[in-house]
Amino acid sequence: MTNLTLALDAMGGDHGPQVTVPAALQALRLHPKLSLLLVGDETQISPYLSSAEIDVRSRITLVHTTEVVRMDDKPATALRHAKNSSMRLAIEQVRDGMADGCVSAGNTGALMAMAKVLLKMLPGVDRPALVSCLPAINGKPVYLLDLGANIQCDYDTLFQFAVMGSVLSEAVDKIARPKVALLNVGIEECKGNGDVQQAAQLLLHTPQLNYAGFIEGDEIYSGKVDVIVCDGFVGNITLKTSEGIARLLVHQLKQGLAKGFVVRILARLLAPRIQKVLNQMNPDHYNGASLLGLRAVVVKSHGNADEHAYIQAISLAYTEAKRRLPEMIKDRLESILLDINS
Amino acid sequence: MTNLTLALDAMGGDHGPQVTVPAALQALRLHPKLSLLLVGDETQISPYLSSAEIDVRSRITLVHTTEVVRMDDKPATALRHAKNSSMRLAIEQVRDGMADGCVSAGNTGALMAMAKVLLKMLPGVDRPALVSCLPAINGKPVYLLDLGANIQCDYDTLFQFAVMGSVLSEAVDKIARPKVALLNVGIEECKGNGDVQQAAQLLLHTPQLNYAGFIEGDEIYSGKVDVIVCDGFVGNITLKTSEGIARLLVHQLKQGLAKGFVVRILARLLAPRIQKVLNQMNPDHYNGASLLGLRAVVVKSHGNADEHAYIQAISLAYTEAKRRLPEMIKDRLESILLDINS
Repeated sequence: MTNLTLALDAMGGDHGPQVTVPAALQALRLHPKLSLLLVGDETQISPYLSSAEIDVRSRITLVHTTEVVRMDDKPATALRHAKNSSMRLAIEQVRDGMADGCVSAGNTGALMAMAKVLLKMLPGVDRPALVSCLPAINGKPVYLLDLGANIQCDYDTLFQFAVMGSVLSEAVDKIARPKVALLNVGIEECKGNGDVQQAAQLLLHTPQLNYAGFIEGDEIYSGKVDVIVCDGFVGNITLKTSEGIARLLVHQLKQGLAKGFVVRILARLLAPRIQKVLNQMNPDHYNGASLLGLRAVVVKSHGNADEHAYIQAISLAYTEAKRRLPEMIKDRLESILLDINS
Repeated sequence: MTNLTLALDAMGGDHGPQVTVPAALQALRLHPKLSLLLVGDETQISPYLSSAEIDVRSRITLVHTTEVVRMDDKPATALRHAKNSSMRLAIEQVRDGMADGCVSAGNTGALMAMAKVLLKMLPGVDRPALVSCLPAINGKPVYLLDLGANIQCDYDTLFQFAVMGSVLSEAVDKIARPKVALLNVGIEECKGNGDVQQAAQLLLHTPQLNYAGFIEGDEIYSGKVDVIVCDGFVGNITLKTSEGIARLLVHQLKQGLAKGFVVRILARLLAPRIQKVLNQMNPDHYNGASLLGLRAVVVKSHGNADEHAYIQAISLAYTEAKRRLPEMIKDRLESILLDINS
């Protein structure tokens, strides 16, 4: 296995180096062939490096800058003005061949805009799609895209998402022919809007993909399919609704188990097991949204990710870079487009 | 308080009279001023009436028919051919002034089509909207519309939804100035698509409504607002996703509490309390989706509603008819449109 280098925007996210640097050290321990470029303020990063073993420390290079993209910066503003920001420099490391991919917990819009301009899109893809892995029943991974990068999508964009999601599932989870479905309000052919219906027609005529038809919201977490495609408006609301209802259930459960002496005692005894279940549902365990369709690997971590969650995001970028995900997507798209045009 | 009569499609739903008739009896016991027209096959309905007390039985009138709308009938087919169906006759009771509203657990599309043609829309409303009450945190009711009746909605339709949802929340839950929000991918003004943004502008200039801005998916169940408006594509997927994730959590919890002897014993002791919490989240406890914008009250029950759930749907129709919801919506719409045009 070859060595890989990832560039980390060490300043991004709500917590900055306090979380990103310890997570980086841990990721280096997990992946002995990994090297990291930590991009950010040396004076803020260095204190967290002192505890590192020699082997781990030797695989870290600091790229110093004090400028950062703020969470409320408009993408266009960040693109035009934050020329020396940790986010931009991290992406530039990838563009310049110094790194095989990058990870940031910073401003999503700015990250997308910078990545698109600096790294360019793959041929046949218009804009990056944001995709994340959700926990289906029994922990089976399911990919949902787009999660909000593309608010309005025509059928052609939905089709591109299906191709990219399918390659992602193959590359990361080693699934042979991932089942791909379109999110819709019913499973009958006549359901949904024009774009969903036209995307379905395209997918039906694409034997390279394992198209499984329409899927409804209540089946997202059923594990029936591996990849679910929708526009960014629907995807964003779907993902956040899931987080909201999961949080509500946990809250109601805690409240329900806090009343009455005997119930409280029993609940306390059961707490570790209940917590274990709830952890499985915790978005942090599935941290890391990939920006697909770019010529290189870019992973976005939750802004408020903790150390564990940030390690997940680094590991995801590592896997995608190792499997050469962008090249895989490019090849698959080319072969499918050739087929369609022949 | 005046007496009210509702027409029940006794044949609709997965279980038919076996569920609808016992539920009807129970609803009559709950509401002493209520009378019911049971529309359906007399030979199937009568056996369930024998246990009824005289007072309850005296408030039931049978309207006999053997024809039914099937769950897989296309709306247009049902409209054209099912002239003597229990669903259609129930709606006709309302049209002809024999009932103040109707309830059906049958085919949603057929119910909407028939209700629209037979009962007509209120002035200023184009199509019925489907709305349901969801359990927000601590059981606070929140109304989400549209749930799938209108797949594509322009800003004007979203605005109508906001008005109707607001009146519903006032009428049913006695909330003084219900907070109304638009479901979106962010809370900043620039977020979302053109229709959502234009609807927001209209709402900002409608002082008769208590417009609370955009809301994201993870806040639907937070109890922050009383009414949430979106198009039927998003609403349908949002509602079903919520059901899916709730089901997943319950499944994982049951699995997690089934392993290990001590855990199993503890879990069994706690089961009644856990079940109580899960029941709160059970959609059956919030059964009954209202068709808004019609000139009369029409409530759709889940097709697979059990007796308890069906009673909820009847009670909802009863409350809406008692509060004269269609007239309230008509008056509010007129006053708002007058204001906008003046």
